Amino acid sequence: MTASRLVVVGGDAAGMTAAAQARRRRSPDELEIVCFERGEFTSYAACGIPYLVGDVVHDPDALIARTPEDHRRNGLDMRIRHEVVAIDVAARTVNVRSLDDGTETTEPFDQLVLATGATPIRPPLPGIDADGVFGVQTLGEGIALRAAVDTSNVEHAVVVGGGYIGLELAEALVLRGIQVALVEAGPQPMPTLDPDMGALVADALHHVGIDLHLEEAVEGFEVDDGAVTGVRTAGCVLPADLVVLGIGVRPASELAAAAGLAVGPTRGIVVDDHQRTSADGVFAAGDCIETFHRVSRRPVAIALGTHANKQGRVAGINATGGDAAFPGVVGTAVSKICKYEVARTGLSEREASDAGFDAVAATIDAQTRASYYPGTRPLRVKLVVERDGGRVLGAQIVGEEGAAKRIDVLALATWTGMTAGELLNVDLGYAPPFSPLWDPVLVAARRAAALVGAAGESSA
Amino acid sequence: MTASRLVVVGGDAAGMTAAAQARRRRSPDELEIVCFERGEFTSYAACGIPYLVGDVVHDPDALIARTPEDHRRNGLDMRIRHEVVAIDVAARTVNVRSLDDGTETTEPFDQLVLATGATPIRPPLPGIDADGVFGVQTLGEGIALRAAVDTSNVEHAVVVGGGYIGLELAEALVLRGIQVALVEAGPQPMPTLDPDMGALVADALHHVGIDLHLEEAVEGFEVDDGAVTGVRTAGCVLPADLVVLGIGVRPASELAAAAGLAVGPTRGIVVDDHQRTSADGVFAAGDCIETFHRVSRRPVAIALGTHANKQGRVAGINATGGDAAFPGVVGTAVSKICKYEVARTGLSEREASDAGFDAVAATIDAQTRASYYPGTRPLRVKLVVERDGGRVLGAQIVGEEGAAKRIDVLALATWTGMTAGELLNVDLGYAPPFSPLWDPVLVAARRAAALVGAAGESSA
Repeated sequence: MTASRLVVVGGDAAGMTAAAQARRRRSPDELEIVCFERGEFTSYAACGIPYLVGDVVHDPDALIARTPEDHRRNGLDMRIRHEVVAIDVAARTVNVRSLDDGTETTEPFDQLVLATGATPIRPPLPGIDADGVFGVQTLGEGIALRAAVDTSNVEHAVVVGGGYIGLELAEALVLRGIQVALVEAGPQPMPTLDPDMGALVADALHHVGIDLHLEEAVEGFEVDDGAVTGVRTAGCVLPADLVVLGIGVRPASELAAAAGLAVGPTRGIVVDDHQRTSADGVFAAGDCIETFHRVSRRPVAIALGTHANKQGRVAGINATGGDAAFPGVVGTAVSKICKYEVARTGLSEREASDAGFDAVAATIDAQTRASYYPGTRPLRVKLVVERDGGRVLGAQIVGEEGAAKRIDVLALATWTGMTAGELLNVDLGYAPPFSPLWDPVLVAARRAAALVGAAGESSA
Repeated sequence: MTASRLVVVGGDAAGMTAAAQARRRRSPDELEIVCFERGEFTSYAACGIPYLVGDVVHDPDALIARTPEDHRRNGLDMRIRHEVVAIDVAARTVNVRSLDDGTETTEPFDQLVLATGATPIRPPLPGIDADGVFGVQTLGEGIALRAAVDTSNVEHAVVVGGGYIGLELAEALVLRGIQVALVEAGPQPMPTLDPDMGALVADALHHVGIDLHLEEAVEGFEVDDGAVTGVRTAGCVLPADLVVLGIGVRPASELAAAAGLAVGPTRGIVVDDHQRTSADGVFAAGDCIETFHRVSRRPVAIALGTHANKQGRVAGINATGGDAAFPGVVGTAVSKICKYEVARTGLSEREASDAGFDAVAATIDAQTRASYYPGTRPLRVKLVVERDGGRVLGAQIVGEEGAAKRIDVLALATWTGMTAGELLNVDLGYAPPFSPLWDPVLVAARRAAALVGAAGESSA
């Protein structure tokens, strides 16, 4: 028997998880696995970049789960600084360019896994290419930003974009003793939260000393001698020794699109629940795809390492003849900004309305531990439920230590389609160091059940 | 219309939650609510007693959620130091003795809620009534123990019983600088965990300096001049300036049994899912009842404030003409011993086997946060699933900070009857300060899915 050949495009979370899973299932005699990565790092924690910048993590190596050499030792033909520039689905080949010498080769595949990741949004603003304007998509960029903070005398930094990445980078720069301004074009930080919860995040940012500029679009960058000196918005010019772009990313689907693969409304590669693209024997996983939102029933593109890993696993199993499914997402996300924690899952009230649900929301203030237990911290939970029957559609949490991971129970309730009336009695762990007698999650469920007249709450 | 009359027996979590719920639903013109409590405190956090003893909580008042006067202000006729000594279901009366003057009165009721709590197990061992031997069931006992630690020169203490209460009290005494020995008749601390997980708890106890004596039954107490000086086991005599009994409790169901109400195999009062006892218009809630275990499908008596509150709410709603159900428990429990955290839900491997399940277990070691994030801590997760199909039957967690509350997701998975294959892809919150890319819960699910051949894990 001739060994068949699996080609993986992209050497980070999704691609290398797929490759490793395939390797575990097929010996080198059965299956050759060739992985192309255009950068020089593999399997690194992009989510860890803010902590490297903030010197919470001291060494970039700590963010690298597996080096190219590690992968080679595990039986993968790992080729870094090699960019796949074209796919010929009919011929079962990819064209690969070496970034070291510019040579291009044609490589055959039997099965292909695309894990090309995401491209940071980088608006063509005047001055955006000046020195001191940093993206943070790749580990190389993260290392460069860290070096700039280490070696320059940075007094003022501006972070552009108030989503998770922007906030985590703002925290990082605050931790480095830098005066930080955060510019967000929308009316609130964390645009995926409802306005009432977003306002709490804005308060938290003020508390940690971040100068928040909402509803101010960046119009350009002030540059002196090739280096950025300020950020210009409609309202003002913010001084900046350094600028970080955290505006967001979009799926890097150009390669797939050029090969004729279906790309969806989010610009993500279209896949089914087995991570199969529209081309036979071609799988895709991670930030480059669009996946299925279990509540809105719509395609979504969410760049997050944990999805990339899970989808990579599924792609690796199915690309080697197995049968695994990725059942979609509910849009869970958690983040920390200094002592504050933010979390969300499912649909916000606004998103629920946009998706056609008749939704109501219950919002409660509670504590993370028993009121008398030291270290108890405040949190607010907002639970969004369907008006008819009270099915949990989503939730948001803003609070302090111990708040964010409570979203997991609500994520699972959203995932399974539980109602607020069912949720309020669930047997969650209780002891004074961990929870009040009624966990905040249950208090929110109780309030939501009352709103929809369920579980006896309003049957007086 | 003449007001009807609700009588509540027991002034703590279950009883006062029922009373407060009834009050919210019915005005004083519609419903008179009379509550009898034989102690002098109401609505206090019995679960907080270890923290009062350990001086983690400084003031006993902090443990009191509502005083008798608070309840009166809320429209309840709260009578402390009044013990209900008999119930006549046919006559719709209770006999009540004043503990101040010994007088007995007969009080009518239309609806009755029994919330008589639990009775600590107190074996008739020689010397058990000596000074310095403490129970910790009531707030009064907790205050007395705290006072003994505050004012005596306690060098050595012995805690009898290695369950949650025993361990929490051992922690409390360690925090007070006392040499603590823990005596447990069984082969491990935390008898409701499987032996492998119990062994981790034993290690944790050693690490915090507790002298652990397993498989040693207490045979009696050494007493000198009326005061305890030691604890005698088959193996040795342990010096003790102070002894705490944490052997466990049983439902206080005598009053109900004497009135002819059905009492079950656990000695708890039998109730249906509406907290109705076998007598019409008589409800019961809290530690005095037995409830329904959703996995074993068997009655269980679990003394825990969070259940008492939930059941009290249901009793209060139904006693006032509403319709609410308590859907049972899955036996979730969490506890902290110094820096260690312990949690369980559902059935252990042993309990699953006893309940007739063909179960397998997956055990994994993981971390609470991303490996590179400071403060990441080890934890072990054991997931028990049905061999055929992989339905989650229960889980156990032992670890350090951030470990225990992860049981909540597993509790909900157990509650809803999810399979390991379904669980492994659930969209739980991920960010480096909160979780590895694969949350430990998902890693355990993945391992369990592989054991049962689900979700593509073993279809190579």
